[in-house]
Amino acid sequence: MNKYMEIAKKCAEIGINNNEGGPFGAVIIDKKGNVIAKGNNRVIKDHDPTAHAEVTVIRDACKKLKTYDLSDYILYTSCEPCPMCLSAIIWANIKEVYFACTKEDAGNIGFRDDIIYEYLKGNKKDLIKLNQIDREECIKLFDEYKNQNKTIY
Amino acid sequence: MNKYMEIAKKCAEIGINNNEGGPFGAVIIDKKGNVIAKGNNRVIKDHDPTAHAEVTVIRDACKKLKTYDLSDYILYTSCEPCPMCLSAIIWANIKEVYFACTKEDAGNIGFRDDIIYEYLKGNKKDLIKLNQIDREECIKLFDEYKNQNKTIY
Repeated sequence: MNKYMEIAKKCAEIGINNNEGGPFGAVIIDKKGNVIAKGNNRVIKDHDPTAHAEVTVIRDACKKLKTYDLSDYILYTSCEPCPMCLSAIIWANIKEVYFACTKEDAGNIGFRDDIIYEYLKGNKKDLIKLNQIDREECIKLFDEYKNQNKTIY
Repeated sequence: MNKYMEIAKKCAEIGINNNEGGPFGAVIIDKKGNVIAKGNNRVIKDHDPTAHAEVTVIRDACKKLKTYDLSDYILYTSCEPCPMCLSAIIWANIKEVYFACTKEDAGNIGFRDDIIYEYLKGNKKDLIKLNQIDREECIKLFDEYKNQNKTIY
């Protein structure tokens, strides 16, 4: 078994045993193989629906490295990232990811990863009501941001 | 202009003026119209690529209410949620969302929302390398979780 995946798995086990959240763990390493951050899903313990293992280690690694850019880092996760985590991985510029179980495996034990993937493909549109209002007032913010040459991440 | 969207817009303005992150704000209210959480994108200030306005207010509302379930709450955001935020909204069980600017508007000032949407539809597959390893070792975690009747969120 890959040694980093083994760490991710151990993190998941700790999370399960402590009732911190779902059975998911993750690790971020640098290209030399140093572990920068490791952790588990903490949705239940932290009262935080965004505290999936991948999001938790991205936040932790970024905090340690004082950056929002993890271009040079690699992520290992015990399960295929859900769309939230996959998007977080892309926002963080991580380019290389290793996962073990699949989103179908997560679905088989009751998690909604698969449903969210379907929603983002354009199906299951009744999952939430998305309504557009007040674009004209808010678009000014974007013009202002662009004109000030602010940071794009 | 909707009064909650106006609050979201003001949050975005504060974020821009303080260089905290992108030009995005959000608010969560209960069904009586009470504001539970409001905030802005803090990606730059917090060194956190997941600190989009919607994620920030979801975390904050959940912390205040001591729950990971926002079924009875409504979210206003100054821009159409990116896939990370939309997935976070679904994980938090929020059913009603109001947004102002579109993902194309965000794309026009340089943000990658649109690219991530395309990726999740199955296009732009070279954006990241996703590799599967060690499923057999990690699937045991899922069996264990299911057999213990642990919480599914």
